[in-house]
Amino acid sequence: MLFAELAELSREQKERLLNRRRSHAEAEAAVRQILERVRRRGDEALLELTSELDGVELEEIRVPEEVLEEAPGTLQPEVLEALEVARAAIEDFHRKQVPEDWSCSSAGATLGMLHRPLDSVGCYVPGGRASYPSTVLMCAVPAALAGVPRIAVCTPPGRHGYPAPLTLAACRLAGVHEVYSIGGAQAVAALAYGTESIRRVEKIVGPGNIYVTLAKQLVSGEVATDMPAGPSEVLIIADASAEPELVALDMLAQAEHDPLAVCVLVSTSREVAESTLRALQEACKHAPGSAKEALEAGGAVLVARSIEEAVSFANRFAPEHLQIITQQDEQVLRMIRNAGSVFLGRYSPVACGDYASGTNHVLPTSGYARAYSGLSVHDFLKRITYQKLDPEGLERIARAAITLARAEGLEMHARSIEARLERRYHD
Amino acid sequence: MLFAELAELSREQKERLLNRRRSHAEAEAAVRQILERVRRRGDEALLELTSELDGVELEEIRVPEEVLEEAPGTLQPEVLEALEVARAAIEDFHRKQVPEDWSCSSAGATLGMLHRPLDSVGCYVPGGRASYPSTVLMCAVPAALAGVPRIAVCTPPGRHGYPAPLTLAACRLAGVHEVYSIGGAQAVAALAYGTESIRRVEKIVGPGNIYVTLAKQLVSGEVATDMPAGPSEVLIIADASAEPELVALDMLAQAEHDPLAVCVLVSTSREVAESTLRALQEACKHAPGSAKEALEAGGAVLVARSIEEAVSFANRFAPEHLQIITQQDEQVLRMIRNAGSVFLGRYSPVACGDYASGTNHVLPTSGYARAYSGLSVHDFLKRITYQKLDPEGLERIARAAITLARAEGLEMHARSIEARLERRYHD
Repeated sequence: MLFAELAELSREQKERLLNRRRSHAEAEAAVRQILERVRRRGDEALLELTSELDGVELEEIRVPEEVLEEAPGTLQPEVLEALEVARAAIEDFHRKQVPEDWSCSSAGATLGMLHRPLDSVGCYVPGGRASYPSTVLMCAVPAALAGVPRIAVCTPPGRHGYPAPLTLAACRLAGVHEVYSIGGAQAVAALAYGTESIRRVEKIVGPGNIYVTLAKQLVSGEVATDMPAGPSEVLIIADASAEPELVALDMLAQAEHDPLAVCVLVSTSREVAESTLRALQEACKHAPGSAKEALEAGGAVLVARSIEEAVSFANRFAPEHLQIITQQDEQVLRMIRNAGSVFLGRYSPVACGDYASGTNHVLPTSGYARAYSGLSVHDFLKRITYQKLDPEGLERIARAAITLARAEGLEMHARSIEARLERRYHD
Repeated sequence: MLFAELAELSREQKERLLNRRRSHAEAEAAVRQILERVRRRGDEALLELTSELDGVELEEIRVPEEVLEEAPGTLQPEVLEALEVARAAIEDFHRKQVPEDWSCSSAGATLGMLHRPLDSVGCYVPGGRASYPSTVLMCAVPAALAGVPRIAVCTPPGRHGYPAPLTLAACRLAGVHEVYSIGGAQAVAALAYGTESIRRVEKIVGPGNIYVTLAKQLVSGEVATDMPAGPSEVLIIADASAEPELVALDMLAQAEHDPLAVCVLVSTSREVAESTLRALQEACKHAPGSAKEALEAGGAVLVARSIEEAVSFANRFAPEHLQIITQQDEQVLRMIRNAGSVFLGRYSPVACGDYASGTNHVLPTSGYARAYSGLSVHDFLKRITYQKLDPEGLERIARAAITLARAEGLEMHARSIEARLERRYHD
């Protein structure tokens, strides 16, 4: 774990913290082969790959409707209730994102903006050893709010074929009927190219491991995809008012996701920084191996001379999750330019947003928050502009349009407008 | 040119019309080399490539401020005025797209959505033989409205070094100070990787030829890009009320963009279809070679049995530009699911939207309108969610979040919430 003054980081240390994108040339070759097999041989390749990579002999690719229907009943009541609380909160927050169509008219011209849902969407939900029902909700609830008529979920099979009942129950709660027991790059290939069992979709969303992420990148000429994804991250800005034990827990929570997770504290209080470091070192003794690994390799506790210095670093870092635990949270928030999702104050751990507060947990990592946004209803809508000019409206802009068309050497463009003006005078 | 009943198209004919994405394996190899040269050797490679590919020996990569300042004065007054009319219309329409931040509070939780501009954007503006000042406006005006502090334009040099005064004047009008005389894949490489003269940007937008498009695809792991682009397209839905000569002019206008342009009429009136075909054949005698080529290769006049059949085909086609010239334009518009931008009625030729009505002309082609939107202010903003819970708000969702965290096997997530609850009880 790195412990340092922010101002005294070496060039290499800074570079390592800020530049978190890695190339994966070897994995890429493997992924290309998987994509090609599925593209050429469809279902047959899916079954083979599931056997080879998941160690499961699938009898059917699609989860039968009755298995989906029965899934909620197999859960403990409090788990089912928790899923429903999460679903309702996510729906509440995302409903506020649904944009309205609008138009504006002036002097013979009506211009407007329509929103239309995508015809179909594929949600990738990680699985295998663990199950991630929360990710089902984060992808499918906004898609349904946008009005997407066809939502397909791909998630790896469990040991006995069907994905975990928890994941299936989340699908059922989110109103998803189309679920496939296929994971990894092969799932992305199926959603992008289509197979006998899985019709292709217009867009693939959802997080995954490096194989899934590479596959999404490689098929992005064929289908749209959401933001690129990498290992989970948190950056915490804390002043002297923050409680080191809580800060350490939030870093550990992020670290337990992935041995490559990145957990950074930037504190204006050397005392908080040092106490957090000690708490982390202590916790590492009991933490699961992957959390320990992540903290050792990707953990950093940095001391900033001022909140401004901390914010400036956070903006360059562009973390997936940003926690602000200070005595001036709102002022700090106003200075934030780059982050996936922000958590303010000591009572807003990232774990709340991961599950049940309502914000989305599919977020840009690896600095992609500098240019990308987290998943939202907007990902499932297209914006379509339109215009209707009447003779008056046309005449108002005709001269400018004709002049520019000729200046750009596009004579037929000019003619297509002039011909209307001629008609107009004879109307 | 294809003339047929829509219902009688062969499988191959339909496939050719609907599946318009082409692979470009040869161009890709050349583009990869260009990207690599610029990545490794920066400015030196830019100068070499400009000499090799544009035949211009550049003395400086960046256009000096005084050359930009002088550009408007070198134009004919009516051209300058036309640029200003276009700029004002584009600004008007795009200002309406600027989203407001919002938040909502309930029972101890405040959740919200912020919008932040990207720190930097690169606009690619085609050029060389012709100049496209309109594209400068379409990219830079929305970026400026979004609040992007750094907007860089790359456009190919003219024969004597600097890009055309028309393009430079548009930059000046749009408030762009950073303009580089670099075009093609090398411009995309410079914007993505950075060179001594050109700092890298967070996102690259703007249309280009196949080299530019491929380059944008290949660098999309490094920087964000707008929608994939291909040759221009128009699909026109017309009933018996449409005037064949105007329809033919709109198709010709689209055809003159590119020998690979796609121009399709779907008419419920056989008479309108036949007359348009005749008008096109007649016009081809005088049309420039590229328009003739486009119409012969990519032109189609199709007869539909009903408006519904025409709309259904248009939705599958997902055209960049959709014209609707019928006696029920608004009803038809309501049925449209996939299109870049829509033009209603006989007085709304696509050429108006290309320049001066205010809508954006950077639009998804090749069927990408099924999943992508045209350029807008949203392309230059990130959405950042945030939340602030107080003890009451945390308590309301804590049980659900803790239950789901444990169900997903993420113990530290659960602990990070529980620890807050414990604090709360001792507050």
